[in-house]
Amino acid sequence: MTNSAALSAREATVLGIIETARRRRAKFRDPTITMSHGAGGRATQSLIEGLLAPAFANATLDAMADAGALVTGGVELALSTDAFVVSPLQFPGGSIGSLAVHGTINDLAMVGARPLALTLSMILEEGLGADVLGAEVTAIAEAARGADVSVIAGDTKVVERGRADGMYLTTTGVGLRDPRARLSPASLVPGDRILLSGTIGEHGTAIMLARNAFELNAEISSDSCSLWPAVDALLEGVGPSLRCLRDATRGGVASVLNELARSSGVAMVVREADVPVRDAVAGAAEILGIDPLYMANEGKMVVFVAPEVAAEALAALRAVPGCEQAVEIGEVRREPPGMVLLHTSFGGRRVLDQLVGDPLPRIC
Amino acid sequence: MTNSAALSAREATVLGIIETARRRRAKFRDPTITMSHGAGGRATQSLIEGLLAPAFANATLDAMADAGALVTGGVELALSTDAFVVSPLQFPGGSIGSLAVHGTINDLAMVGARPLALTLSMILEEGLGADVLGAEVTAIAEAARGADVSVIAGDTKVVERGRADGMYLTTTGVGLRDPRARLSPASLVPGDRILLSGTIGEHGTAIMLARNAFELNAEISSDSCSLWPAVDALLEGVGPSLRCLRDATRGGVASVLNELARSSGVAMVVREADVPVRDAVAGAAEILGIDPLYMANEGKMVVFVAPEVAAEALAALRAVPGCEQAVEIGEVRREPPGMVLLHTSFGGRRVLDQLVGDPLPRIC
Repeated sequence: MTNSAALSAREATVLGIIETARRRRAKFRDPTITMSHGAGGRATQSLIEGLLAPAFANATLDAMADAGALVTGGVELALSTDAFVVSPLQFPGGSIGSLAVHGTINDLAMVGARPLALTLSMILEEGLGADVLGAEVTAIAEAARGADVSVIAGDTKVVERGRADGMYLTTTGVGLRDPRARLSPASLVPGDRILLSGTIGEHGTAIMLARNAFELNAEISSDSCSLWPAVDALLEGVGPSLRCLRDATRGGVASVLNELARSSGVAMVVREADVPVRDAVAGAAEILGIDPLYMANEGKMVVFVAPEVAAEALAALRAVPGCEQAVEIGEVRREPPGMVLLHTSFGGRRVLDQLVGDPLPRIC
Repeated sequence: MTNSAALSAREATVLGIIETARRRRAKFRDPTITMSHGAGGRATQSLIEGLLAPAFANATLDAMADAGALVTGGVELALSTDAFVVSPLQFPGGSIGSLAVHGTINDLAMVGARPLALTLSMILEEGLGADVLGAEVTAIAEAARGADVSVIAGDTKVVERGRADGMYLTTTGVGLRDPRARLSPASLVPGDRILLSGTIGEHGTAIMLARNAFELNAEISSDSCSLWPAVDALLEGVGPSLRCLRDATRGGVASVLNELARSSGVAMVVREADVPVRDAVAGAAEILGIDPLYMANEGKMVVFVAPEVAAEALAALRAVPGCEQAVEIGEVRREPPGMVLLHTSFGGRRVLDQLVGDPLPRIC
């Protein structure tokens, strides 16, 4: 990685311009909502930073973590909520029901909280088949049982035909902060290693295949699963040396890295050749013209650890079923702050920028 | 009320038939979802009892309260979630944003939990005006501040034009069980008094007027507000003698009474003439052909108290702004179990049954 140590004068100028723009808090100026506001990239960021965060200003929301913090009676809780609008409702490896459980559990796990309980809100479209609803209710119940959480409250609303798309779900999770965890984006320091818990892009690709969007004889299943067992193993293995965790959902690994680089004011360098991508996913990504680094995952996370425990953390991760292919993909740097640089497989170097637009709508 | 003490032979037979049918757990056999499954009446009950409760079987869901219970680290929490799909988004007295805050806070208050924090999930329709979104974000923030709760986590998804109706919201609330509260539907005993915290039917009527559904020169505003101050006053006034609370939302007062009579195995007698209804609401109800007892409220509750503290409870309630018109409307009886009887304003007596169908869809 010697070629990344120094920047050319031209590179430095370009990066300087991008960096200055990036330091400003994003403004929300769009006249109407577009699909890109839901894609997890730049437009989502402008909506959050420009409209939502100022309106709901409080310390826990400002931290921009995957889950909010609530301390009451000496107990440290984490809360997370997610809406699910995935289309189609069912796909290889999962369905909206299992996804709604895993997605919310994982947001709790990312802040080092053991998932305890879920609530479920359903918006159903008039005319939805009772069998379809029944299958999703079963999927939710099974995923919750598999993750050892209870669904303790719920609500159901029905809207007229054509006012939804089968069903939309919102799950909200409550977790208990694990005392072994000292996770915070603010704790990232140059030298920290960046690990990936496994191969990327499967969820996004499985959804695209399920939509019959393109001809491909690939058997790709969503990676949707609970990440708590992996987080538990990491906390047991390296505990307080774990700096920060993010599941790479909407917008993929690239978006997660950009968000963190930006909020922590550090740089990140990623070695593209070390990022594990299955052949079938790589093939589909090429046909779609989407970099797998921007593709959604529902059971993969980016892990930041102190360099001295990187090997231990990797070993702990690889011992967890589903994380056998965990790898180190890069590290945290000081310069240029707020930016993610990619060392490409072809030996080049480029900025791995935020996602713009929404290449894969309604992926979760 | 001497005329209710004895039932005629014919009445006893009719009630016996209804009662037997009602004791059975409702089955969910409909082939598709209809608007009535979201109306809070009999179809909603069949969905909950026939499909959801068996799938998610656990003690807190089985209790069928407005909020689920979660005990962790010695702290007793309540969790509640609600989806909001009200149409139109704005109406006199409120909007989907303020409703989403009050609705969820009130579900916590009904189980005797002081609201602490909320999460917010938004499903936005592509093309929604940024001004409309901005107004609702402001409404949510203001309602939350007014109720002294923080919005500590959120999520936003966007669906294609025609796949929603402007916006749908889901709020989830966390509350702390108040140690003064001993609330439980199971605690209802014959002789308990039934109070109402104020006039009914305003929310449902305001929505219908906002839809221009019928010509009426009435100024009716939704009653949407936080009920926690009223619950706080009741707990302070009569504490453990408070048996049970229910906010009369979808399906109105009649649905709440039926649910509780059924789940507690008691009977209830309500004196129609004592139920406070504003003239404008009564007029609108007559035009619509809907009994105000079935109309939705978003800031009114039914209160069950031990008879010896009914006067104190009423005085405590009436001292709370917005509850000045609180009244006693009836009492809990032993026979016929599971049934609600109405002593009509005309001196008759009839069964006040569960809501069937959905006369006022998308009211919340």
